[in-house]
Amino acid sequence: MTSPMQPAFDALHALLGDRFTTGTSDRALHGQSESHFPDMPPDGVAYPETTAEVAGIVSICTAHGLPVIGWGAGTSLEGHALAPHGGITVDFSRMNRVLHVSAEDMLVVVQPGVTREQLNEELRATGLFFPVDPGANATLGGMASTRASGTTAVRYGTMRGNVLALEVVLADGRTLRTGTRAPKSSTGYDLTALFVGAEGTLGLITELTLRLQGQPEAVSAAVCAFDDMEAATQTVILTIQSGIPMARIEFIDATFVRVFNAQNGTDMPEKPHLMVEFHGTTQSTREQAESFGEIVTDMGGSAFQWAERQEDRNRLWKMRHNAYYAARAQWPDVHAMTTDVCVPISKLAQAVTETASDIAQSGLPGPILGHVGDGNFHVLLLPDRDDPAQIAKANALAHRMAERALRLGGTVSGEHGIGMGKLKYMDAEHGAGWDVMTTLKTALDPQGIMNPGKLLRQT
Amino acid sequence: MTSPMQPAFDALHALLGDRFTTGTSDRALHGQSESHFPDMPPDGVAYPETTAEVAGIVSICTAHGLPVIGWGAGTSLEGHALAPHGGITVDFSRMNRVLHVSAEDMLVVVQPGVTREQLNEELRATGLFFPVDPGANATLGGMASTRASGTTAVRYGTMRGNVLALEVVLADGRTLRTGTRAPKSSTGYDLTALFVGAEGTLGLITELTLRLQGQPEAVSAAVCAFDDMEAATQTVILTIQSGIPMARIEFIDATFVRVFNAQNGTDMPEKPHLMVEFHGTTQSTREQAESFGEIVTDMGGSAFQWAERQEDRNRLWKMRHNAYYAARAQWPDVHAMTTDVCVPISKLAQAVTETASDIAQSGLPGPILGHVGDGNFHVLLLPDRDDPAQIAKANALAHRMAERALRLGGTVSGEHGIGMGKLKYMDAEHGAGWDVMTTLKTALDPQGIMNPGKLLRQT
Repeated sequence: MTSPMQPAFDALHALLGDRFTTGTSDRALHGQSESHFPDMPPDGVAYPETTAEVAGIVSICTAHGLPVIGWGAGTSLEGHALAPHGGITVDFSRMNRVLHVSAEDMLVVVQPGVTREQLNEELRATGLFFPVDPGANATLGGMASTRASGTTAVRYGTMRGNVLALEVVLADGRTLRTGTRAPKSSTGYDLTALFVGAEGTLGLITELTLRLQGQPEAVSAAVCAFDDMEAATQTVILTIQSGIPMARIEFIDATFVRVFNAQNGTDMPEKPHLMVEFHGTTQSTREQAESFGEIVTDMGGSAFQWAERQEDRNRLWKMRHNAYYAARAQWPDVHAMTTDVCVPISKLAQAVTETASDIAQSGLPGPILGHVGDGNFHVLLLPDRDDPAQIAKANALAHRMAERALRLGGTVSGEHGIGMGKLKYMDAEHGAGWDVMTTLKTALDPQGIMNPGKLLRQT
Repeated sequence: MTSPMQPAFDALHALLGDRFTTGTSDRALHGQSESHFPDMPPDGVAYPETTAEVAGIVSICTAHGLPVIGWGAGTSLEGHALAPHGGITVDFSRMNRVLHVSAEDMLVVVQPGVTREQLNEELRATGLFFPVDPGANATLGGMASTRASGTTAVRYGTMRGNVLALEVVLADGRTLRTGTRAPKSSTGYDLTALFVGAEGTLGLITELTLRLQGQPEAVSAAVCAFDDMEAATQTVILTIQSGIPMARIEFIDATFVRVFNAQNGTDMPEKPHLMVEFHGTTQSTREQAESFGEIVTDMGGSAFQWAERQEDRNRLWKMRHNAYYAARAQWPDVHAMTTDVCVPISKLAQAVTETASDIAQSGLPGPILGHVGDGNFHVLLLPDRDDPAQIAKANALAHRMAERALRLGGTVSGEHGIGMGKLKYMDAEHGAGWDVMTTLKTALDPQGIMNPGKLLRQT
């Protein structure tokens, strides 16, 4: 029997040859996520190599009313790249070239399939680096689409501030360029900011111009332990308020420390920790470390364990970045639910300690870590995958976290995004703003083919 | 004879009493700008005191199809607040309260009519300050609407990065809240960024939540002279590329130095100058000054004239901020045309020197200054107001500046905005992006009542 989609498939084959496939394994691969969502495969997968091909794919999908879903590295955590309504997944893995580096202007132009680690590898000889670091080796197109941030956002900002210009293919097949190479502009609506964080619902990003940073003259990193969570989070609050330009300030609870020790053979005391990094000149990093050290001492924290050598720092941050995977390895048979919220820094201690007490009451494993310099923290809830009562408990706990964040003046996601997972909080967080988002979406994508089922009110 | 607008006027009187006026002097005052545009008065002026009143005004204007124009301090330079199609100007001078300061979260909530200087005055005791400084004592609502920046943007960013949340009244009278008090969020389209820089064409900002900065422990400022423009701009380029976290780095050409000397009784050498400021700890500002000093020496610049005391720094920056007014005082009978462009930093020397050579050839007075750390510079063109040939020359010169900026990968305005003055470059800078702006505008303001005649394609 011929699929009703056959004409669209034929057009896609004509455009892309064997870089368009409806094969089961490709579809299955693009129907999975790293999170707890059920599999939702697309009807076909396209592997474009140029912007013109992306425009061609979108035009075909528009003509046939087929959904279009962008795919980077598949590392998003709220089901952003799943295909709940079927359609065509556009896999950007073949658009993975660094197109232009301008060391003078401290910017780089990349295709969307370039990953964060690949970019920094290619930049190494220039003395520059791209600072946004969500942990996972995500693609830059994906990071822009979800407005990613991570460990270094406290110093260098999120994708919001680090994307200078974009090329985007719109739902009607038009190719749009936003922004320029100038550091700032006041010439009309900030279209770059509109597409950053739009989760592929307004168009597909086909090129990004990104701000770079100079590699600091001196980098030092350290770890210190605290007797309780309150002391650790208060240390963060005081550090941020005192204006020390921390490059990283990460919280890990005792449960995560246990996971790290088990997975990495380390012997950190099983207490809440802060992992920090200082960037600057030799003199200024020393000064920062002294100021931070005074706060730590005042709050009863331990002496720093320094990681001075590059390889020690790499090991430290690799351990931090692998936290999610390490915990999943520790609890292999669970339904891993990771969730993040972000609160004003003054409410961080309250938000974290109330969450921890919720977790303790639930009896579930639920390690906490976070980019606490931004007021952003994550919980990894690990209910038994065969125990519906545990899963219900985990859901209730995540729900209370989101509601608490809103009550404290914060947001239901600091960096994971909405996708399919947090649609239920959009009304509470945005009110009329969610309707305005729908108005904008409808104006740019009247058929609703761009990543349907995500971010917007489901009709 | 009764005006066809009488029913709308009656409704506005019923809402606002004598805080709505159609009096000649009020209308005339709101029909002027600080720039070279002809007067374009509105049909009436409203002075709301609450968001509910703003929503009421907009609803009345929507019902009667009357234009609505926001008015802050009237300091914009591209005719943003003029009323080319008549209508009602909403003057925010009575919505000028600082509503809430959170020192802990380093944020402040203000009404749109609060001015920059008023805000920093009210913040003084908190140890915090709001860094964006466009020179003029503009209102924060106006600064957000034009995406203002100024002398400190090189360190602290523009309004784009410093507005955390907004309250906005839309064309249909709905009141919208965007953003939260959390430092970051990834929950949907960045509506805050959409309204910042929209020049009042999508709605009226009725409340702003702004990021604050800690007053630095140490501040030092200095001035140094260069033999030529090339050496001064190359110094800027090398300084930015070397990553010195300059708080301010301003260029002033020899003509502006002459103006300063004449107006302020100073005796700066009549050469291009850089005016700089360092923020940090005592140690780190010293270190920054040393690094910058080495670059200045390499480029043949003079020794620093330091302004260490607060009152000396105030005098220095007051002189810089008054540059525009000082030049107008120096050339009283001219048609003052100020224009700004912004280019990638690598192109700054080329853009400035080519512009200077253009000015020299024109024979017009045309002092240059700029926030050169951002690649942003301004020219004040001063043709005789009674000499059409000189005015045509000035226009041609401004036109070449804009085209040069685009050719060099930059933007036709770094911070003045589009208003009515730079509409003619929107197509060249944005292409399909300008159409997308129109699509968004039409979706949110189908009648086109919000600040018509500005920013968007004129139909």
